Amino acid sequence: MTQRVWNFSAGPGVLPLPVLEEAQRDLLCLPGVGASVLEISHRSKHFDAIIQEAEANLRQLLSIPDHYHVLFLQGGASLQFAMVPMNLLGDGSADYIITGSWGEKAIKEARLVGTARAVWNGKDENFVRTPRPNEYAIDPSARYVHFTSNETIHGVQFATEPPVGDVPLVCDMSSDFLSRPIDIHRYALIYAGAQKNAGPAGVTIVIIRDDLVQRAPETLPAMLNYRVQAENKSLYNTPPVFAVYIVMLMTRWLMHTIGGLENMARINREKASMLYQVIDESNGFYRGHAHPEHRSMMNVTFRLPTEALEKQFLQEAEAHGLHELKGHRSVGGCRASIYNPMPIEGVRALCEFMREFARRYA
Amino acid sequence: MTQRVWNFSAGPGVLPLPVLEEAQRDLLCLPGVGASVLEISHRSKHFDAIIQEAEANLRQLLSIPDHYHVLFLQGGASLQFAMVPMNLLGDGSADYIITGSWGEKAIKEARLVGTARAVWNGKDENFVRTPRPNEYAIDPSARYVHFTSNETIHGVQFATEPPVGDVPLVCDMSSDFLSRPIDIHRYALIYAGAQKNAGPAGVTIVIIRDDLVQRAPETLPAMLNYRVQAENKSLYNTPPVFAVYIVMLMTRWLMHTIGGLENMARINREKASMLYQVIDESNGFYRGHAHPEHRSMMNVTFRLPTEALEKQFLQEAEAHGLHELKGHRSVGGCRASIYNPMPIEGVRALCEFMREFARRYA
Repeated sequence: MTQRVWNFSAGPGVLPLPVLEEAQRDLLCLPGVGASVLEISHRSKHFDAIIQEAEANLRQLLSIPDHYHVLFLQGGASLQFAMVPMNLLGDGSADYIITGSWGEKAIKEARLVGTARAVWNGKDENFVRTPRPNEYAIDPSARYVHFTSNETIHGVQFATEPPVGDVPLVCDMSSDFLSRPIDIHRYALIYAGAQKNAGPAGVTIVIIRDDLVQRAPETLPAMLNYRVQAENKSLYNTPPVFAVYIVMLMTRWLMHTIGGLENMARINREKASMLYQVIDESNGFYRGHAHPEHRSMMNVTFRLPTEALEKQFLQEAEAHGLHELKGHRSVGGCRASIYNPMPIEGVRALCEFMREFARRYA
Repeated sequence: MTQRVWNFSAGPGVLPLPVLEEAQRDLLCLPGVGASVLEISHRSKHFDAIIQEAEANLRQLLSIPDHYHVLFLQGGASLQFAMVPMNLLGDGSADYIITGSWGEKAIKEARLVGTARAVWNGKDENFVRTPRPNEYAIDPSARYVHFTSNETIHGVQFATEPPVGDVPLVCDMSSDFLSRPIDIHRYALIYAGAQKNAGPAGVTIVIIRDDLVQRAPETLPAMLNYRVQAENKSLYNTPPVFAVYIVMLMTRWLMHTIGGLENMARINREKASMLYQVIDESNGFYRGHAHPEHRSMMNVTFRLPTEALEKQFLQEAEAHGLHELKGHRSVGGCRASIYNPMPIEGVRALCEFMREFARRYA
């Protein structure tokens, strides 16, 4: 198979074709450098230009002011689950709002480090929604409040930030980072594995307000210490050079091809609406998992009438060039992940297939 | 500049051209997959095949038996500086043999975690050699002994493992991993950032004996816990997919093009001998840093008569297509890093230039 398929993987996921084409063209020899980006020193002026542009573009796309650091780290969101409490918790406690499996993993790691309280947990309802503000009470002395803006497994997304008063808000934004504009001033710390909307696996972007950086205990190992990483501008040790380069190309694509995050959000809303409409007009053949007003624009999760039909659906979809539609192994069913780089044509092809499949099997 | 230069970077460093060419050819579409390796799920059968082959090839190249785990982690050797004591130290102490800057960094991190003793430190001699066995005494109750097989900054390499009795031997092998055969049974734990001899930046290979994996405290965060990483076969969370893929291609190149580590070591010795011969026959124009019997086969470090001549040397070398020969910012001078993928032709070109430069300026 040398033809590209429609790839609905929940992550690592599809990348924009022009980004892949540029990376391919320059893979033996970066223009003006004489070596592959896979071979350049992270202390070279060539890499300096790459990481500085990646940071500058992120600052422009998200309107990030100077008193926030932008870091490029390793270890994924899962390492951030530990680094956040290691740096910020001290002998205090933190509040967690839990709307899916990733939030559960985050609080589990925090509890290995110190005290963390689940102020709301949607598990009893099988993670179908985000909470109303009157359903939880934040401890005003909490060191931070943590939430997961989009839960990939259940397909539940916060429409906007949960109100938390003056307590610093920490967000795992791994699966909707750069998918829509945000008000950066609402956040004290954002972290995001790049491999959904912002680049390939292997780099994690951390945006952190300077006052939080200063909280890191002196006794933390260097690589786990936000202050060390910020003071060294992500170059305390060798960063994942190639992954940062692809993030840089992705930010260029978002700025110059898409035209910024307002446009990206409009496209993402359109893609999601197309799929949810097919689900809602299927007379119950397709059943969406999340409550409509809490549905994810990134991960459209749904079931079919029987598991046998789900299996049939996945097989026929793949034969139509529609790949990676299987739900997460922990919940089953189907899931279409439609991150930034998924073109509208891919979503249209999936919608047509879903309508046709329902006609034949309903 | 669209022509490739000779790249003597200390890391990330040069990769074999056939590896880059294969990665380039398949960058839009991995054969049989329909997506780029940058886009595939780490839970897909396609990535399974990649990571399993990378592990199998490493096991074959280094004759790694079944009671050692082979892990692909993130964070570089610098994160291992902390993970090793976090997993292995407990309330005991560890012994460190320090032959350069990396060993110093390693013990500094260990002391943030617990008790670590420098049993030998070459700093007073400016890191020009490794110790004789009678120069240090290992505590037989130490939890482990740590050493750095090759110090990139000073160009000092252990010819063979330091004798440590029955104490588990831990090695930072970042800069000579896969450059020569080793007796794996001498080691309890080996870690290596891939970006010198084994692949690109962004993945760290850890080879760990099963009894050490079992020492990890229950309270360690998952991502920092060798047992969690081993039980999940490096897939606790999303691994750096592309970097693992390049490591897999590198292991294929080592096996099929080079013909195994005996051959690789022979080639590496030949390359290093060529350069040290130029230095030794220059009548003191070039002065090698390390004592001859402790010289690195990977990083050839040398000075010229004056700093002005060193600057001139670097400028003229670059004009001849010989790049990245500047010594580490902490020691100055010159350094030619000649890892596995540096072809003999590149070393020959450097030798000719060095002889010619000495003729003109001696």
